[in-house]
Amino acid sequence: MSAGTLKVGVLGATGYSGFELARLLLRHPRVDEPVFFGRGEDTAGEPRNLTDIFPALSGNGGYPLEPFSWNAIERHSVELLFLAAPHEVSRAVVPEAVSRGIRVVDLSGAWRLKKAEHAAIYALPDEDRAQVQELATNAVYGLPELHRSRIQGAALIANPGCYATAVILALAPLLQAGLVERERGIVADAKSGVSGAGKEPTPRTHFVSVADNLSAYGVFTHRHLGEILEQLALQTEEITFTPHLLPIPRGILATIYLHLKRPSQAAEIESCYREFYAGCRFVRVFRPPKLPEIQFSVNTNYCDLGFCLGPDGQRLVVISCEDNLLKGAAGQAIENMNLMNGWGEDEGLV
Amino acid sequence: MSAGTLKVGVLGATGYSGFELARLLLRHPRVDEPVFFGRGEDTAGEPRNLTDIFPALSGNGGYPLEPFSWNAIERHSVELLFLAAPHEVSRAVVPEAVSRGIRVVDLSGAWRLKKAEHAAIYALPDEDRAQVQELATNAVYGLPELHRSRIQGAALIANPGCYATAVILALAPLLQAGLVERERGIVADAKSGVSGAGKEPTPRTHFVSVADNLSAYGVFTHRHLGEILEQLALQTEEITFTPHLLPIPRGILATIYLHLKRPSQAAEIESCYREFYAGCRFVRVFRPPKLPEIQFSVNTNYCDLGFCLGPDGQRLVVISCEDNLLKGAAGQAIENMNLMNGWGEDEGLV
Amino acid sequence: MSAGTLKVGVLGATGYSGFELARLLLRHPRVDEPVFFGRGEDTAGEPRNLTDIFPALSGNGGYPLEPFSWNAIERHSVELLFLAAPHEVSRAVVPEAVSRGIRVVDLSGAWRLKKAEHAAIYALPDEDRAQVQELATNAVYGLPELHRSRIQGAALIANPGCYATAVILALAPLLQAGLVERERGIVADAKSGVSGAGKEPTPRTHFVSVADNLSAYGVFTHRHLGEILEQLALQTEEITFTPHLLPIPRGILATIYLHLKRPSQAAEIESCYREFYAGCRFVRVFRPPKLPEIQFSVNTNYCDLGFCLGPDGQRLVVISCEDNLLKGAAGQAIENMNLMNGWGEDEGLV
Amino acid sequence: MSAGTLKVGVLGATGYSGFELARLLLRHPRVDEPVFFGRGEDTAGEPRNLTDIFPALSGNGGYPLEPFSWNAIERHSVELLFLAAPHEVSRAVVPEAVSRGIRVVDLSGAWRLKKAEHAAIYALPDEDRAQVQELATNAVYGLPELHRSRIQGAALIANPGCYATAVILALAPLLQAGLVERERGIVADAKSGVSGAGKEPTPRTHFVSVADNLSAYGVFTHRHLGEILEQLALQTEEITFTPHLLPIPRGILATIYLHLKRPSQAAEIESCYREFYAGCRFVRVFRPPKLPEIQFSVNTNYCDLGFCLGPDGQRLVVISCEDNLLKGAAGQAIENMNLMNGWGEDEGLV
Repeated sequence: MSAGTLKVGVLGATGYSGFELARLLLRHPRVDEPVFFGRGEDTAGEPRNLTDIFPALSGNGGYPLEPFSWNAIERHSVELLFLAAPHEVSRAVVPEAVSRGIRVVDLSGAWRLKKAEHAAIYALPDEDRAQVQELATNAVYGLPELHRSRIQGAALIANPGCYATAVILALAPLLQAGLVERERGIVADAKSGVSGAGKEPTPRTHFVSVADNLSAYGVFTHRHLGEILEQLALQTEEITFTPHLLPIPRGILATIYLHLKRPSQAAEIESCYREFYAGCRFVRVFRPPKLPEIQFSVNTNYCDLGFCLGPDGQRLVVISCEDNLLKGAAGQAIENMNLMNGWGEDEGLV
Repeated sequence: MSAGTLKVGVLGATGYSGFELARLLLRHPRVDEPVFFGRGEDTAGEPRNLTDIFPALSGNGGYPLEPFSWNAIERHSVELLFLAAPHEVSRAVVPEAVSRGIRVVDLSGAWRLKKAEHAAIYALPDEDRAQVQELATNAVYGLPELHRSRIQGAALIANPGCYATAVILALAPLLQAGLVERERGIVADAKSGVSGAGKEPTPRTHFVSVADNLSAYGVFTHRHLGEILEQLALQTEEITFTPHLLPIPRGILATIYLHLKRPSQAAEIESCYREFYAGCRFVRVFRPPKLPEIQFSVNTNYCDLGFCLGPDGQRLVVISCEDNLLKGAAGQAIENMNLMNGWGEDEGLV
Repeated sequence: MSAGTLKVGVLGATGYSGFELARLLLRHPRVDEPVFFGRGEDTAGEPRNLTDIFPALSGNGGYPLEPFSWNAIERHSVELLFLAAPHEVSRAVVPEAVSRGIRVVDLSGAWRLKKAEHAAIYALPDEDRAQVQELATNAVYGLPELHRSRIQGAALIANPGCYATAVILALAPLLQAGLVERERGIVADAKSGVSGAGKEPTPRTHFVSVADNLSAYGVFTHRHLGEILEQLALQTEEITFTPHLLPIPRGILATIYLHLKRPSQAAEIESCYREFYAGCRFVRVFRPPKLPEIQFSVNTNYCDLGFCLGPDGQRLVVISCEDNLLKGAAGQAIENMNLMNGWGEDEGLV
Repeated sequence: MSAGTLKVGVLGATGYSGFELARLLLRHPRVDEPVFFGRGEDTAGEPRNLTDIFPALSGNGGYPLEPFSWNAIERHSVELLFLAAPHEVSRAVVPEAVSRGIRVVDLSGAWRLKKAEHAAIYALPDEDRAQVQELATNAVYGLPELHRSRIQGAALIANPGCYATAVILALAPLLQAGLVERERGIVADAKSGVSGAGKEPTPRTHFVSVADNLSAYGVFTHRHLGEILEQLALQTEEITFTPHLLPIPRGILATIYLHLKRPSQAAEIESCYREFYAGCRFVRVFRPPKLPEIQFSVNTNYCDLGFCLGPDGQRLVVISCEDNLLKGAAGQAIENMNLMNGWGEDEGLV
């Protein structure tokens, strides 16, 4: 290992977020030969390479895919472990990793929720509730724009959900400034590319089901809602969140509707955003009337924010866009790693 | 001309709505050889056929495209004229057509709006305001579910806008039943395929601009908003309407958010819809939790409605889907023709 | 049952071809209430309707989906049975159906191939080879343009493969006229929409695998090759057939390359096609330089043919397009039913 | 300017290739603040920034877009000029640039063709034929895999066409090894994403024309054919090249058919490719039966090659994939810049 570099492992490198994580880590200047651990079936039988699954990654090597074990973790002296696996895997693996002093950035939802009633959806049947509660309490919600300093010292990062990132970044500045009339209700109408639904082939992800189509799903029940409520300190009835499945591979656009407490000028709103995100490397605030589009942020780690104020000066429509696999998952995970290690926030990301 | 058939003409058969109109009229059992009039450049130079522009229509003939003139209208004894042309053409042509006793179904926005302040966006510089106002007043807004009996005797049908159809059909039953808390504001987040933006090649309709993308546009300013306000008798500040451009050729999905005045059961809402649309051939009400998707209505003349009621029983999300070129344009125009002639509402449409 | 109508059943109405078959049969003027039989899991548990699986079909009724049984066949007095099921189902069911005097149009590959070495890929482990061979011999390959008169009297129609239809129709006229230098080899480079790969969710049909992509598959080994060889009386080494998976839901375009025996004029080639297809309702021959595109034939039952002759007058590129679910499957099946019953070839198809 | 860096200018940064060029140059470690010159209308009126046209590029600055002039070239001390403009601009600008000692990488077709009869399609009406012929003769065809050493010393690079790159790289090893039976004819059936057709909005690039479609164009006449013939030393009648327009934004897949002179083993063919491309950083040879797909190479600078040998051992199908905007345009241009300056071939490209 070269001086100044970090030894990282990735558990679950074979999904869509895992692919992006691998791609980013392989070109990260401070990371030395990441170790890739496959999930179950991917490592069965003969040893396989990550490039067998993702031919796009080939060209410099094969990147062997190892079965996960604590022995392997030790043998490779892994210092920081990324998890891009189902939350059940995280709930089973993370307690041991943390107790061994390995820092963790977990892309699953396992540790994002502080309130037990929200977090219950991620529970394992037989898990140690006290231990889990302690981990969840100590885990830092890895949204640098909100929790930068706590991320720097964290042992366990709960990397935010893709929808949650887009919605929280759009609303946090306005809510913190006390501009929003919460009683009238906020609407977050979000649309995501199919990679957000995971790599599992299902009737819903079949090309013919998605192409030339648009559908709403998880209305009032999507699991990212809990993160939005907790991070923004909103009550359930104060926000309605509806995700939709777009016929595109990646990218999220959330259209957010709210009422301001008093008639305002566009310049005030823009200032509110610019001040809140001053010094934030990966939020781009658009000047009206320019609005973000999915294309502008795809393949980047930016969350783009723009807005349109109604003729009455009180109805506000905010548009928030990001790449669900980058700022919404793997890119933000790298950003968290960078902050945890005191490196530049954008190392390996631009 | 066979007994019992009607002689119809189409002005502007070369756009996307015109293509659907031509396709439907050519197989309509009560229509005898429709006459197709081209717009400007389409008829310049040598005579052309509609099948030169739309090879998909060929197989039974070429369908000559004639230059539009009143002589040609007389020569063909046109009894009913469809206009699928820009509203400027409609404002110039319709007064004469009506005065000649030719019934008109106009797919443009020219006559949809009763209030002068709304209709101003469709005005010609030198038009006779009194005459126009009279036409607009007498024109029937061609939404059969709301104005069936008036359509039957109409001389001039203002065929509704695509977005307006989807939004109005989703809201009319609830508003009429007095269930909606209008003061808290309604949100209509609508998404449309690209054919809704017309056939003109522009940077915005270039394949590379649309594919893998989603963008909002016309926030607070889209011209279909006026129709929605007038037909639903809403005040401007009571509804926020945001259209988005989807990377698909056709279809609209509108996600509509509102608060009910009092906590309700899903069954009440479903009944409200089913009663309102009893006897309506082209509205399909979905039973919760099943929700409409764009695919279900594309290539049909249906508007599909479904909904999801929040856990508080007061927040309601309604999903409305249709094919923007059929129920949102050409299909509804045929439906109007059927009603005007006392034929079955679905003749030639299923 | 009305006078002059036929009682038909559909086994396997829940796949993509089955959906199109159902849609066409429900509006066919000579067919009276088709009976839909589900495949295995579709009929398990509570009775389901076809509209539960295909909401797009709803609006006139639910169309109950019955478990398949010979009792049900008798109870409904089924006279003609469509099979849109895997070939294993066909090999098991068709012998009994034929012995009961029920006419069959089979959309699977089970009976398309006359030569035992080709047909072996469709065999069941324990089937009666003699019986199967006899059925295969008597089955008529349901391509009306080649076998019209035999179709009219057939008891069992082997409905052609989608790729095979596109390639055979492009080549038959030229080969029959003896224009092709077969020794130099023919290339058929074919591209199909994803519905051709079936409704089964697999890693290959996942939206993210297909979108923004193109891939070749089954090079030298695709099972439609046998049909092409047998119907065109070509030797294996005389034609190279490569299918590709297009990021679209439906439609096939085949680009076919061959050398003519002697330098020719475009007019000769066009005449060859027009003469061969005179009287064929569903082949459209394009006049050069106009070439077919997938869009022109999708949602129609046409096979579109066009060509481009090289500057040397000997290299010929033929373009053949069709909707893989219509002329390539369900539409052609209806066409065969029409011919078997002496009805107009295009009844219910335009 | 930092030590060891180069001052580069880009003329025509506002097209699709220009965008990729800008994106790559802005993160290239050896390039110091590239200067962007707009084409005509882009610089009219108030000064604009590249990020106004490509919001995706924003985040680090605006990148002013300057009107092109020799004064500006001198003021910025431009040492190497990229041209991503129409060939007419190149024919007008390059002679002066070369005479001023500025090295040029031209992405247009202006200088790719050595034979006057091929190059005539790129001619200006009033140009100095002798001067042009000399420039064309001295220009190096910028395909590193074929002309690496000449590129290193070149004053003017004719950056290859996108289709030409894919086809030439697939065929060069086999032709050089004398394995191909050229008399039987080679077929190159190529499919490209829409960005290859340029940013101009036309009826052909309208989203609705491209989506759900596939079409062939330029059969026997596409201008990249000349490059293929010259670089591979083929006769016109030895290869048939047909481009198709795919409903995807970017990427090319070419399916190439040929006959080998004698029956061969797959291992021989693979060796032929591997030996030819030993030391080539941006060609990936796939091991059968694995074949390249467009997705694998998009957003990379690789050209991926794979093949399938027929059961007779003589018919060979080669699949060649690349990103038309990277290895097919801007990426290869950067590769050429790297070689011209003695830098690592992949600097700024991985």
